[in-house]
Amino acid sequence: MTPPAPIAHETPLLDAIRTPADVRSLPESDLPRLAAEIRDRLVAVVSKTGGHLAPSLGVVELTIALCRVFDFPSDKLVWDVGHQAYAWKMLTGRNQRMGTLRRFGGIRGFPFPAESPYDAAVGGHAGVALATALGFAAARDAQGGAGHVIAVVGDASLTNGISLEALNAVRHTTERLILVINDNGMSISRNVGALARVFARQLTGLRYNRIRAAAETAGHRLRLFRLKAFYRTLKTIVKGILLRQHSSLFEDLGLRYIGPIDGHDIPALCDALRAAAEGHVPVALHIATVKGKGYPPAERNPSKWHGVGPWAADAAPKADRPTWSAAFGKTLRDLALADSRIHAITAAMRDGTGLDLFFRDLPARAHDVGICEGYALTFAAGLAAAGLRPIVALYSTFAQRAVDNLMHDVCLPNLPVTLCLDRAGFVGPDGPTHHGLYDLAMFRALPNLVIQAPCDAAGLAAALDAALRRNGPTVIRYPRGALPEGPAPRLPGATPGGPVILALGPTAFWAEPVARALGLALEPIDQVKPLPALVRTLGDRPLITLEDAAEEGGFGSAVAEVHRGPLLILGWPDRFVPQGSDAELRAACGLDAAGLRLRIAAFLSALP
Amino acid sequence: MTPPAPIAHETPLLDAIRTPADVRSLPESDLPRLAAEIRDRLVAVVSKTGGHLAPSLGVVELTIALCRVFDFPSDKLVWDVGHQAYAWKMLTGRNQRMGTLRRFGGIRGFPFPAESPYDAAVGGHAGVALATALGFAAARDAQGGAGHVIAVVGDASLTNGISLEALNAVRHTTERLILVINDNGMSISRNVGALARVFARQLTGLRYNRIRAAAETAGHRLRLFRLKAFYRTLKTIVKGILLRQHSSLFEDLGLRYIGPIDGHDIPALCDALRAAAEGHVPVALHIATVKGKGYPPAERNPSKWHGVGPWAADAAPKADRPTWSAAFGKTLRDLALADSRIHAITAAMRDGTGLDLFFRDLPARAHDVGICEGYALTFAAGLAAAGLRPIVALYSTFAQRAVDNLMHDVCLPNLPVTLCLDRAGFVGPDGPTHHGLYDLAMFRALPNLVIQAPCDAAGLAAALDAALRRNGPTVIRYPRGALPEGPAPRLPGATPGGPVILALGPTAFWAEPVARALGLALEPIDQVKPLPALVRTLGDRPLITLEDAAEEGGFGSAVAEVHRGPLLILGWPDRFVPQGSDAELRAACGLDAAGLRLRIAAFLSALP
Repeated sequence: MTPPAPIAHETPLLDAIRTPADVRSLPESDLPRLAAEIRDRLVAVVSKTGGHLAPSLGVVELTIALCRVFDFPSDKLVWDVGHQAYAWKMLTGRNQRMGTLRRFGGIRGFPFPAESPYDAAVGGHAGVALATALGFAAARDAQGGAGHVIAVVGDASLTNGISLEALNAVRHTTERLILVINDNGMSISRNVGALARVFARQLTGLRYNRIRAAAETAGHRLRLFRLKAFYRTLKTIVKGILLRQHSSLFEDLGLRYIGPIDGHDIPALCDALRAAAEGHVPVALHIATVKGKGYPPAERNPSKWHGVGPWAADAAPKADRPTWSAAFGKTLRDLALADSRIHAITAAMRDGTGLDLFFRDLPARAHDVGICEGYALTFAAGLAAAGLRPIVALYSTFAQRAVDNLMHDVCLPNLPVTLCLDRAGFVGPDGPTHHGLYDLAMFRALPNLVIQAPCDAAGLAAALDAALRRNGPTVIRYPRGALPEGPAPRLPGATPGGPVILALGPTAFWAEPVARALGLALEPIDQVKPLPALVRTLGDRPLITLEDAAEEGGFGSAVAEVHRGPLLILGWPDRFVPQGSDAELRAACGLDAAGLRLRIAAFLSALP
Repeated sequence: MTPPAPIAHETPLLDAIRTPADVRSLPESDLPRLAAEIRDRLVAVVSKTGGHLAPSLGVVELTIALCRVFDFPSDKLVWDVGHQAYAWKMLTGRNQRMGTLRRFGGIRGFPFPAESPYDAAVGGHAGVALATALGFAAARDAQGGAGHVIAVVGDASLTNGISLEALNAVRHTTERLILVINDNGMSISRNVGALARVFARQLTGLRYNRIRAAAETAGHRLRLFRLKAFYRTLKTIVKGILLRQHSSLFEDLGLRYIGPIDGHDIPALCDALRAAAEGHVPVALHIATVKGKGYPPAERNPSKWHGVGPWAADAAPKADRPTWSAAFGKTLRDLALADSRIHAITAAMRDGTGLDLFFRDLPARAHDVGICEGYALTFAAGLAAAGLRPIVALYSTFAQRAVDNLMHDVCLPNLPVTLCLDRAGFVGPDGPTHHGLYDLAMFRALPNLVIQAPCDAAGLAAALDAALRRNGPTVIRYPRGALPEGPAPRLPGATPGGPVILALGPTAFWAEPVARALGLALEPIDQVKPLPALVRTLGDRPLITLEDAAEEGGFGSAVAEVHRGPLLILGWPDRFVPQGSDAELRAACGLDAAGLRLRIAAFLSALP
């Protein structure tokens, strides 16, 4: 990545804004400059903190228009996949603190109600905004309130099952709701499925685009009621003549369709939002935006700039050790070259899971199902029942959406599906929506399942190989970030029969300095279910379990079920773990070397 | 329920059928009689075993037509919510064993691959058939196979998120797949949402129905290619003239739409299936059936006859003690009469959860969201964030679909949503797809959550009351079936400081005779998270935990995490528990009085 150095411009308009009301009081002629200032600040901040740059750059004008038209926080705005919400944070009282974005104790990378009354809901997992918004709308209707409820949903999120369940429920639930569909060409081209085709049809026809350009020009000049009439006409034209296969999808679902609107034209957006707000029918407002808008490197390559690490000159240098994801992707690709039964499935996490290599080299056996984790597992069950060996790669936190599919469709018929959980463990700056701490507890009770947690690259390869040979389901979990160097450490301990640290997966590397300092035996453990035989051979020896997972219900809990000697379970505590660097979070939760040593020493000193 | 006594007719045609090939070799003129014989046998069997009568009666002709047109098991048939599949089981080699339906060791109430090669997938949870079928189709396409893949999905299942994710993926995944939409008026009228409206529009217009009647008459006489042309014409007529708002939903999604077809007209069904099979485009074949068809009581009241207990004169008499569900429904209704913040939400389980009373008396605050468990939780989060006190009632096994919604949308923002898990524990004849054994393990690691397991009616009322007063999320679990009589037993034990049985929820009643016989203390426990203080006051006393849940990761596991004295964890073992009566299943898994006594005595005798 060789980006241009960000330039820290002055941002006087932005700096004067404390609440959305301040945005409303600006003259319309100042708004383009406000948008430019927001973009400058976005790039300056993210160049130092890392974060989701391209999505936030794409919705600057939308965010301004929303602040102009609605009265927040009385009106409720729910962002889907809230990494679009950086500009929103700047305009709702958090501009001064944006330099702490995604840092320990700082502004969160996603909307978070505990952070601000303007954040109506948590927005870390895709697909839930419309459902939440319907809850707000139903509550308003039941209480006789008058406020507006707006959900901003990306086109990719719209194909998630919860989004679709919510779409189906809109008409039945309320007469007043605004669904803003933030549709960027980038996302469309990479998206799969019929809904994406529907959007693409609306945006790509040549003649249609000419009309659209005219509409945009016209939109600048039209006042509200004329605009509405115009778009109604446009819609009819488009439906009737240019796009014979035009989608009436939203109308089938009982929503009035308005769009597409140029998502970077503030007056057009304001007019469209006002039009959407005044009726007594739910509205799907379809806006077209450019991901990465206004920052040339991000416009050119929005995928690369979707989520980025810091790149400012004074940001911390990035390690370039190979990651777990890359090791997984390469190992699986190599295995698949020799075994045509292997298919790879991911849910819109092609790059993040390291499967890009598989998609490049074996595209006929690579399936990106979009943000549909539940579907991914059940689809894999079908492949496996037909004799193939599917590997599903998901982030641990998103796999929470596929628990029932794993149980009902995979484990119950005992099918050879392998679920690889990337980001299993804490993930750093993405925070509590993204930490993968609960998979062990959620999956451990499922019969027929084997759960592996390899300690190093060799262990990962061995786990994959074993999973492919099994005639039953396997989960393989591994954390975010760099592979540890060398094999996981094993220490004999100073005292025969003395305390043993059982360290799950790569936490053996966390434990090593502490075990050495305290003279304890250290055993790296790579399997949670069934428990390795070793665990049952340790008699009443004092055991310390360590895992990169929640303390309740996980590996330590499995050991506790069978071990009756002294036991200390070490993992992430029973509260939501915040965002921060690896060092900060481990220190905050007593999982750094000092914390581990302190807690283990206290445990040892209390032994009889 | 005062049904007529079923008449056991002779079923010579049916009895001669061993495989679907035998159905193909029957002359067409025999098929109506075969259908009648199947219905007779269905009623005779279910009158003794109980089961899902009305759905299976509705698809008799469809099942025959599928057997006529396709070549099973080479072709793959996936039933969604497989309780429609009784006729299928009869025609695929299981007719002689149907008398064992839903009984211990007998024919399962749902498709189950381990039972028959004709059952392509497990079919207990709604909404997964199309996803599984797409897996079969993709595997066939990848391997160059030629077989057909058919999914039969009810209109209610089609609005589930996994179904919708799969619908969106069809066009991208394969060119050859048949989705049969089994649409019965009954289901439509009770369904919610826009998709139901789409179906209803297609079936209810008066003029349209006249044309449809003509089409059906005509359909009898038309041969295949003429039929196709006819339906194409009909579709155009319907779209263009009669139903101006006709749905192009399926066409937007890339499926060719054929229908509606009379689902009780075997020749028409066969023609339509052949038409669907020959193209190279995925097909949505929309058939209209009558739930309960052919058994007058079930036709008159298909909801009552959806799933029924046995009613034959020689069937075991049914206890009529009040159920947990009824107690929940009445308690919640009474609480809600005094607190307008209370809203009730269910996912197509209005009667089953006991919420029918709430829906009757407080319809404005009652929400049936259809088979959309994930949506139910996130919608509830929106209601709670807006100041209401939503109660979501789901069966434990279906709540597995809402794990992520509970974590991300409810627990993380710490919202006062109460999730009531009915059928939490083993459920008897519905078997492994429906036992609610994994909720404790899946939910226990979630921060901010309180998990209650009341022991009796008073405990349930107290748990609900406490949940409504909390400013955070609560899960309340209780089993299927009758409330225990009287308060949960507590016994002091013969020896001070001796072993204690900690029995979760109503399992205190299971433990009582054993505790008395062995002179053990018995403590009923009604909370899993956080653990009651009592558990930490027991020092090193030998403990026996008992729960109606999986042994791994649940209540016993929670006790194991904090208790270092001798411990015996008793619950359901780490394998899928089959179907059967309560007595049979508890005996099979060592959870009846004899089994508990044996295991506890062995544990006690091994104590030092």
